[in-house]
Amino acid sequence: MTALETLRSRLAELADLQVMAGLATWDQLVMMPPDGGPERGEQLGTLARITHEHATAAEIGEWLGELDRAELGPLDADVVRLARRDWERARRVPSQLAADLSRAHVEGHERWREARAADDFSIFAPALERNVELARAYAECVADGGGLYEALIYDYDYGLRTEDLRRVFSELGEQLAPLVDEARARGGRASLVRPEVPRGAQQHAVESILRRVGVDDRSWRLDVSAHPFSSSMGRGDQRITTRYEDGGIESLLSSLHEFGHALYERQVDPALDRTNLSGGTSMSIHESQSKLWENHVARHPAFAGVLSEALAGGGYEIEPQRLHESIVAVEPSLIRVSADPVTYPLHIVLRFELELALIEGDLAVADVPAAWGEGMGRLLGLSVPSDALGCLQDVHWSEGAFGYFPSYAVGCVIAAALWEALEREEGSREEALARGEVGAIKDWLAEHVHRHGRRLDTIPLVEQATGSGLEIDPFLRYAAPFASATAPR
Amino acid sequence: MTALETLRSRLAELADLQVMAGLATWDQLVMMPPDGGPERGEQLGTLARITHEHATAAEIGEWLGELDRAELGPLDADVVRLARRDWERARRVPSQLAADLSRAHVEGHERWREARAADDFSIFAPALERNVELARAYAECVADGGGLYEALIYDYDYGLRTEDLRRVFSELGEQLAPLVDEARARGGRASLVRPEVPRGAQQHAVESILRRVGVDDRSWRLDVSAHPFSSSMGRGDQRITTRYEDGGIESLLSSLHEFGHALYERQVDPALDRTNLSGGTSMSIHESQSKLWENHVARHPAFAGVLSEALAGGGYEIEPQRLHESIVAVEPSLIRVSADPVTYPLHIVLRFELELALIEGDLAVADVPAAWGEGMGRLLGLSVPSDALGCLQDVHWSEGAFGYFPSYAVGCVIAAALWEALEREEGSREEALARGEVGAIKDWLAEHVHRHGRRLDTIPLVEQATGSGLEIDPFLRYAAPFASATAPR
Repeated sequence: MTALETLRSRLAELADLQVMAGLATWDQLVMMPPDGGPERGEQLGTLARITHEHATAAEIGEWLGELDRAELGPLDADVVRLARRDWERARRVPSQLAADLSRAHVEGHERWREARAADDFSIFAPALERNVELARAYAECVADGGGLYEALIYDYDYGLRTEDLRRVFSELGEQLAPLVDEARARGGRASLVRPEVPRGAQQHAVESILRRVGVDDRSWRLDVSAHPFSSSMGRGDQRITTRYEDGGIESLLSSLHEFGHALYERQVDPALDRTNLSGGTSMSIHESQSKLWENHVARHPAFAGVLSEALAGGGYEIEPQRLHESIVAVEPSLIRVSADPVTYPLHIVLRFELELALIEGDLAVADVPAAWGEGMGRLLGLSVPSDALGCLQDVHWSEGAFGYFPSYAVGCVIAAALWEALEREEGSREEALARGEVGAIKDWLAEHVHRHGRRLDTIPLVEQATGSGLEIDPFLRYAAPFASATAPR
Repeated sequence: MTALETLRSRLAELADLQVMAGLATWDQLVMMPPDGGPERGEQLGTLARITHEHATAAEIGEWLGELDRAELGPLDADVVRLARRDWERARRVPSQLAADLSRAHVEGHERWREARAADDFSIFAPALERNVELARAYAECVADGGGLYEALIYDYDYGLRTEDLRRVFSELGEQLAPLVDEARARGGRASLVRPEVPRGAQQHAVESILRRVGVDDRSWRLDVSAHPFSSSMGRGDQRITTRYEDGGIESLLSSLHEFGHALYERQVDPALDRTNLSGGTSMSIHESQSKLWENHVARHPAFAGVLSEALAGGGYEIEPQRLHESIVAVEPSLIRVSADPVTYPLHIVLRFELELALIEGDLAVADVPAAWGEGMGRLLGLSVPSDALGCLQDVHWSEGAFGYFPSYAVGCVIAAALWEALEREEGSREEALARGEVGAIKDWLAEHVHRHGRRLDTIPLVEQATGSGLEIDPFLRYAAPFASATAPR
C-alpha cells in the first residue's frame, strides 16, 4: 500500500471506532438496563483509549511525511490536510493530562449532580475549580496564538475566533434587549394557555411529521430517551430520540431539531464515507442544521397547519394559529433549555461571558453565582432565586466542556442566515411549507452545507453558503415578528 | 505497573472489545435499520482486526516472559495459563490466512443463501470446497498432535478430543435408535394436535415465566429477533431474544433456552470480570446450560402446570398434561432446529460424521448430498427429498464453522448428567418445579458450573460437577420416558 492508502485505512478505522463509541453511548441512553452502567463505563473508556492511541500514533506522522502533496487530488488533499491538523493537535496533549482530564470530568459530573440536588453551588465549586485549571493546562498545549479560550473553542468549532464571538455576542446582547422588552410589555407567554397534548397524540404527530420529512424504516430509528439526541451509525442508519413528557408539544419541536442534526450526517457526500471528512464540520454548523428545522420549519407560520393536522390525526384538535402562537411566544425565563427562540441566545451570551472570564482568569469560581445573578438581571431582567435555577442548571462545565456553549447561539444565527440565503435562491418557502413539502429545503442544504462534510470549516462554509460572514441581522429579522406578535390575551 | 498488571490491563481491554463486538452484533440483529448493514459490516471488521492485533501482539509474550509463575496466586495463575494458551494459539495463524478465512466465510455465506433459495447444492459446492481447504490449512497451524479435526474442535471446546466425540456419537447413534423406533411404532407426534397459541398469549407467557426465573428490568432485556439468541454485555446487562411466530409454543422453550445461556454468564464469579476467565468456558458447556433449562426445566412434567398457568394469564387455556405431551412427543423429522429432544442428537451425529470426514479428507464435497441421504436413512429412517431440506439447512459450514456442531449434542448429554448430579445432591426437583421455584437450581449451577468461568475446561468441569466423565447414560435415562410416553391418540 502507498502511504496515502495506509493513512486512509487508518482513518477508516478511526471512523469505525467513533461509530462504535457512538453506538455504545446510544445504547446506554436508549436500551441498556440500568445495572449495565458501570461496565459500559469501562467499555467506553477502553474504546476511547484505543481510539486515542490509533489517532496519535507516531506512524501517522511517518505516512504524512512520505506523501507527496503535489500529487494529491482535491479530495485527498483535504483528507491529508485534516489528518495532519487532527494528528498534530491530538499529539500535543500529554497522556497524563488526558487521563487527569478524563478523571476530573467524571468526578466533576458527580459533584455537580450532588450540588444541584442540594441546590448548593459550594459543593460543586472545588470540582469546577479543578476543571478550569485542567482546561487551561489543556488549552496551553493546543493553543495557536489566539489565547486559551480560543484554543478550547477550536475543539468544537475550528477557526471560530474569540473575537468573532465577542462581536456576535455583544451585538446579540444589545439588539435582542429591545425585542425582549417589547414582548415583556405585551405580557409574554405566561398569558397564553399552554396546550395540554396527550402523550399518544404527541407520539402520533411526531411519527407522522417525521415520515413527512423523509424518515423511513429502512435507514432511521426513532426512540425515546430522557434527553433528546441524535446519533449517526453511518449514512444508512440514522437514529433520533425524543421524549413525550409533560403534555406539551416540545416533542414536535425537538424531534424536528434532532432530524436536522441527523439529516446533516445523512447528506454528506458519500465519497467522504469512512474518511476523516465525513460527519458535520463543527458544533455550530451542526446546531445551525437542527435550529433551521426547529426555528425556520417547525416555527414557520405556514407549517402550523401541518403540525395541527398531525396532532388531529392523533386525536388532539388545536387551531393552527393558536398552536403557532404557543411555540413562538416570547418571555424571559430562568432555564435555558425551555427558553423561547428569541430569549434563548441571551442565555448563551451569559454563559459565554462567564466561561471566557473563567478561562482567562478574570472570574474566580467562587464568584460565579453572583456573576450569574448580575447577568440574568442585565440580559433578561430576571432575578435568580437559587443556584439550581441558576448556575447549576447546565451539565457542560461539570464535564469540562468550556467553549461548547457558543455553538448553541451561533447555530441559531447561522440557521437564520442560511434560511435567508435559501429563500433568496429558491423563493419563499411559505406555500411549500403550508403543503408540508420540504424536498427543496433538503436539496438546498445538501448542496450548500451537508455534502462538504468537514472539508469546509465553520466560517468558510457560512461565507460560501450565504455570501456573508457571521452576521446576526438575519436572526434579528427572524426574531422580530415573534416579539411583536406576542399579543396580550 | 508490574508485568502481571500490564497483562491484566490488556486482557481487560480485550474483554471490553469483545463486548463491543457483541453489542454491535446484537444491535444489528435486533435494532439496526436494514440500510445500516454494509457499514456495520465494516465496523465489525475493524473491531475484529483491532482485537486480533491486541490479542496477538508480541509484547504479550514479553509480559508473559517477565512473570514469575511461582509468585502467582491461584486466580492469577489461571489468568496467566489461559493468556499464554490463547496468545500462542492466535499467534500461529498467519495474518494472510486469517484474512483469507474471513473473506471465504463471507463469500461462503452468500453462496449458501443462493444455493438454499435455489435448492441446489452445486451452487454452494465450490465455496464449501474452499472453506474445507482453508479450515484444513488453519487446523495445520494450530494442531497439537490430535489431528486436524480436533484442532478445529479446540476453538469451541478446548480439550475435547476427537476420540471422545467418536465414542459419544457412536453410542448415541446405537442407543437412541431403539427409542426412536419405539416412538415411531406408537405414532409419533404427527398424531398430536399441535397447540395454536396466539402471539399475545405467547408473549405474556414468556414474560411471566422469565420473571419467575429471575429476569428483571434492572439487568436484563428481552427482545424479538429472527433467530433467538443471547448476548451478555456484562454481569449487569444480559440480553435474550425470542420470536413469537407460527402460533406454537417454541417461544416458551427457546426463551428458557436463551435464559440458560445468559444465566451462565451472569453467575460467573465477579472476581473474573474483565479478565480472560470471564464468560462461559466452552460451547458444549454453554449449550448444556441452555439445554438444562429447555430440556430439564421447561420439559419437566411438573413444570407443565407453571407453563399452562402462564399461558392462561395471556388468555390461552391448555391442560398441563396436553401441553407437556406436545413438547416432548418424539418423531423423526428432516430439520434439526425443530427436532424433538430425543431425535435431536441424531441430527448432530450425522453432521459430526460428515464434517469429520470432510476435514480428514475421507469425503469429497461433491458427495455430501448423497452421504446426507444415507445418514438420514440410517439414523432416522427418513429419505431426504431435497438439498434445502437436507445438507443445505444449516448455516455453519458456509461460515467455516467446522467442529461447532458437536457442542449441540454434547450439551444435551452434559445437561442430563448435571441434572442427575443436581437432583442427587439437592433431591428431586419435582415439587419445587410444580411451584415454579428454581432458586436451588440456579444456586447449584452457580456453585458447580457458572462461577468457574474459563478456569475449568469442558471435561474437568464435567468431572468435578458430576463425578463422572462424558457419559451418555443420564441422557438416555432422560429421553427414554418421552419415547415410551408418546402414546397413539
